[in-house]
Amino acid sequence: MTHHLAPGVWGVVATPFAGPSLDVDEASLARLVRHYADIGTSGLTVLGVFGEAARLDAAERRRVLDTVVAAVDLPLVVGVTALSTAPAIEEAEQIRAALGDRLAALMVQVNSPRPEVVTEHLGAVHKATGAPIVVQDYPVSSGVRITTPDLVTVVRELPSAAAVKAEAPPTPAAVAALTGALDVPVFGGLGGLGLLDELAAGAAGAMTGFSCPEGLLACVEAYRVGGYEAARAAYAPYLPLVNFEAQAGIGLAVRKEAIRRRGLIEASGVRPPAPTMPAALGPQLDRHLAATPGALASGEEVR
Amino acid sequence: MTHHLAPGVWGVVATPFAGPSLDVDEASLARLVRHYADIGTSGLTVLGVFGEAARLDAAERRRVLDTVVAAVDLPLVVGVTALSTAPAIEEAEQIRAALGDRLAALMVQVNSPRPEVVTEHLGAVHKATGAPIVVQDYPVSSGVRITTPDLVTVVRELPSAAAVKAEAPPTPAAVAALTGALDVPVFGGLGGLGLLDELAAGAAGAMTGFSCPEGLLACVEAYRVGGYEAARAAYAPYLPLVNFEAQAGIGLAVRKEAIRRRGLIEASGVRPPAPTMPAALGPQLDRHLAATPGALASGEEVR
Amino acid sequence: MTHHLAPGVWGVVATPFAGPSLDVDEASLARLVRHYADIGTSGLTVLGVFGEAARLDAAERRRVLDTVVAAVDLPLVVGVTALSTAPAIEEAEQIRAALGDRLAALMVQVNSPRPEVVTEHLGAVHKATGAPIVVQDYPVSSGVRITTPDLVTVVRELPSAAAVKAEAPPTPAAVAALTGALDVPVFGGLGGLGLLDELAAGAAGAMTGFSCPEGLLACVEAYRVGGYEAARAAYAPYLPLVNFEAQAGIGLAVRKEAIRRRGLIEASGVRPPAPTMPAALGPQLDRHLAATPGALASGEEVR
Amino acid sequence: MTHHLAPGVWGVVATPFAGPSLDVDEASLARLVRHYADIGTSGLTVLGVFGEAARLDAAERRRVLDTVVAAVDLPLVVGVTALSTAPAIEEAEQIRAALGDRLAALMVQVNSPRPEVVTEHLGAVHKATGAPIVVQDYPVSSGVRITTPDLVTVVRELPSAAAVKAEAPPTPAAVAALTGALDVPVFGGLGGLGLLDELAAGAAGAMTGFSCPEGLLACVEAYRVGGYEAARAAYAPYLPLVNFEAQAGIGLAVRKEAIRRRGLIEASGVRPPAPTMPAALGPQLDRHLAATPGALASGEEVR
Repeated sequence: MTHHLAPGVWGVVATPFAGPSLDVDEASLARLVRHYADIGTSGLTVLGVFGEAARLDAAERRRVLDTVVAAVDLPLVVGVTALSTAPAIEEAEQIRAALGDRLAALMVQVNSPRPEVVTEHLGAVHKATGAPIVVQDYPVSSGVRITTPDLVTVVRELPSAAAVKAEAPPTPAAVAALTGALDVPVFGGLGGLGLLDELAAGAAGAMTGFSCPEGLLACVEAYRVGGYEAARAAYAPYLPLVNFEAQAGIGLAVRKEAIRRRGLIEASGVRPPAPTMPAALGPQLDRHLAATPGALASGEEVR
Repeated sequence: MTHHLAPGVWGVVATPFAGPSLDVDEASLARLVRHYADIGTSGLTVLGVFGEAARLDAAERRRVLDTVVAAVDLPLVVGVTALSTAPAIEEAEQIRAALGDRLAALMVQVNSPRPEVVTEHLGAVHKATGAPIVVQDYPVSSGVRITTPDLVTVVRELPSAAAVKAEAPPTPAAVAALTGALDVPVFGGLGGLGLLDELAAGAAGAMTGFSCPEGLLACVEAYRVGGYEAARAAYAPYLPLVNFEAQAGIGLAVRKEAIRRRGLIEASGVRPPAPTMPAALGPQLDRHLAATPGALASGEEVR
Repeated sequence: MTHHLAPGVWGVVATPFAGPSLDVDEASLARLVRHYADIGTSGLTVLGVFGEAARLDAAERRRVLDTVVAAVDLPLVVGVTALSTAPAIEEAEQIRAALGDRLAALMVQVNSPRPEVVTEHLGAVHKATGAPIVVQDYPVSSGVRITTPDLVTVVRELPSAAAVKAEAPPTPAAVAALTGALDVPVFGGLGGLGLLDELAAGAAGAMTGFSCPEGLLACVEAYRVGGYEAARAAYAPYLPLVNFEAQAGIGLAVRKEAIRRRGLIEASGVRPPAPTMPAALGPQLDRHLAATPGALASGEEVR
Repeated sequence: MTHHLAPGVWGVVATPFAGPSLDVDEASLARLVRHYADIGTSGLTVLGVFGEAARLDAAERRRVLDTVVAAVDLPLVVGVTALSTAPAIEEAEQIRAALGDRLAALMVQVNSPRPEVVTEHLGAVHKATGAPIVVQDYPVSSGVRITTPDLVTVVRELPSAAAVKAEAPPTPAAVAALTGALDVPVFGGLGGLGLLDELAAGAAGAMTGFSCPEGLLACVEAYRVGGYEAARAAYAPYLPLVNFEAQAGIGLAVRKEAIRRRGLIEASGVRPPAPTMPAALGPQLDRHLAATPGALASGEEVR
């Protein structure tokens, strides 16, 4: 169906904050999303967990959306933070109002282990906005665990499904089951830790935050053209940084600092309750960036 | 200081939903809070975790506040759901606008294990609104764990502290440490499971959801007048229901159904992701209510 | 079937340790189990989680069993700590060798979410020893979660089942489902927190650690004779202490200290990694014991 | 000190089980550990968590040790499963009896957040056996969390410390703090996910289970000779398989199946409660092995 998301890489966009007051830094955000457009991502996912959406007020969320819309022409998926229907619709309507036709889909989390509850929730958000729905199964954020068969049921009964974002580890077997049963595209997430295996299991691509989305693109494109071995060769040079950024708890802070050191944003602050990056990791992050293909401009010093 | 909360029982108010659409039921809410006023609670805590605040949209939260303000003259503490400063201030300002002078305090959650982060957060919410702050330490909701000494530091550096709501189990030793080090009143929560021990450790009272707040009142008043043994005698008849309502996961649904069967609200629906009460528990809930002092009007049949 | 456990209260026995070296204190253990015999428990459960079985070496476990066998004539259930079949059989055979015909049943934990795995495991332990099996479903100890329907399947296919110990909260609905589908007796545990509701759901009694098993007995006997209301009246005076002993993490230490203060054991040490009781709780424990019916001998001072 | 472990790679040895009965397969074990000797590991770690030690009975643990001792001349670290002192000493003495002078060190887990408790525990195990101690900080197995400063205190006060196995994620900052404060070697674990970063933080090497320890060796040796960039180049080709084997829950089963497909063991069964590998992952595992340098003998078909 036409509302299915295009395969490839959907960049999950960080929200840059400026200075000690941690205000939304619109200039950095614009620079960051233009970078995504320049490198060839299929689209962007804004206001996701990695975008710290739950840590922004409504005006800030609006400014994030306005900034992104003005900066790039890419298709936009926008995350809904709330797990219950009324506040989810409230967010969804604000997003709809901000983006109009630019909204490719809303990303809404699985909010119950009971498929009929999820179906009603996703259907209500769709009905209120007319927007296609990316179904996000992300237990570490939602606290909700659904079985894969029940998730299949949910997506089958959701004509407006645009994609599934499969982030309940271990993901490779789940992606295989989902892609075997559904014609809706399934994307991997979780920072790209299992991207090779998710592609091999039939994933349409990656939708995740990683400081060098060039690596996700190289992997997905190589898989399309040359299959697993080509993808593996393309992705292996990025995996040291992928794993470094996947560190428990501090992953968001590490990733934002990596983006900063790449010159894509001005400052790397995270809002509490997210913990900051231990200073001891700074030199190692530099080593990673220096060695990761294309992470730093040729001859550039780490900032 | 005068902004300290009065000791006693602060009722944490459920948000009643009507029918299958689960709309906020204002008539039930008014009836419920008037019951709290009638029985002599010191005040009410609205839009807390038990009030399903995170499952309401802004208009619904406003209607809840308007309804409560119009229905009772009790002092009101209002919960702030967000853990980050910007959305917490957004909520706090909406609450301030709705309640004006009726706002006794905002209840704000501990949002970091680092005391300096919490101090800055609580201070910012206070500065934006002028409201006193009830500091809620509730790891099962926030995902944040702070040590008791660090919590003492936070509260000491917060001139606007109105109270501490101590809900990091095991609570009795924590309450003892907090009341020994602070002159701010400390309240127990967690459905009253440990109220006797929290009082013995110096708590000023209870601030929690329980379908028969009459039991909390009886306990706290008996403790004030007669000490532990009197409180124990007063509270023991309520403990079977307290424990029944404290069941993992389904506690909210059980408690709302108990409130419904008492005739205080019209319907007992909970919004997902909260699970519903297993039907098998219905007869046992009736037995509890029939035996709990004052739970049902004399001669009344369970509805 | 004759190998079903008798209904009533099965005391889960603490293992007393003497002095700073925390050696097994056989004299205290003998005194403790004789107390259980004196008050009329149906039997004893030795070397359970509450008996710190995983913290004893094989010789100590043997001495515990020998001491109990010599001290009382009660039927004995003995816990198996290991979750895998080979070490479980090793333990089971040692227990069989120590107890011979005195062994009423082995208590073995559910060790997989897959019922066929559990069935094979329990069957193998039974086959190796000939002993009836108490099936313990205790996720907080085992880390394993099985659905109630799958647990029913397991028990149905286990002719040697002596009982089920249902400790996956919330237990009341689980006990109702188990007793509705099985003719094997089902016992509540978890320190007695939900005993009234477990009895109302059809439980045959309690099998748990509590410093005043007299309260469990009073409750179960009252339920048998007079139903829920009688049980409730009998049990309410014990609930303040039940809840005090159920404190997260420190419950074991609190319970052993309560047993010590009752004069039933000489010292209350727990072996790491169990945390010790905070000293601040001592006076409150005294208050509980002074007020709990029969906890202290008439006129006795707390030791 | 001479009892410090040599730097490099210590292979954590899987325990192979034969056929549906899951008996210890000594021939496979001998073949497996000879492979480790052939490729140049510094030593072996036997009966660790990855070796499923808690799922073996004492006779099986003895046969594992006897088999390994007879098969290779490598230095041997042996894991102690119990967290409490008495059963830990029991295991330690059995290990000592089996290995005599072949025992390089015992690996003992941190068993309390309180450093004085851990110090006493580790000291007692050392005193009972004379063996040097590898201190393992592995919260996902032990359930115990200690701060890094407290872990430094523990190791400083333990003259018999042979090494620290740092497995409390995020590990890189912890390894940096440990190596900065201690002269005891610190090893990374966790399947090699963070090996590059642990080496950069000062780790002496890796002590972990991975189906291709050749990759760990290549990484550690390259780091020694050429620093981070060389290590990164050497390790990147192994990371796709490292990540595949690190899948939550099923990692052990995947890793054993990979070892089997390499021809190093006969069968890949795991003992419950470990879950088995989903069949859907088989083809992808083949792809990984075919592409991983040296995983399969030249021209060999996957078995």
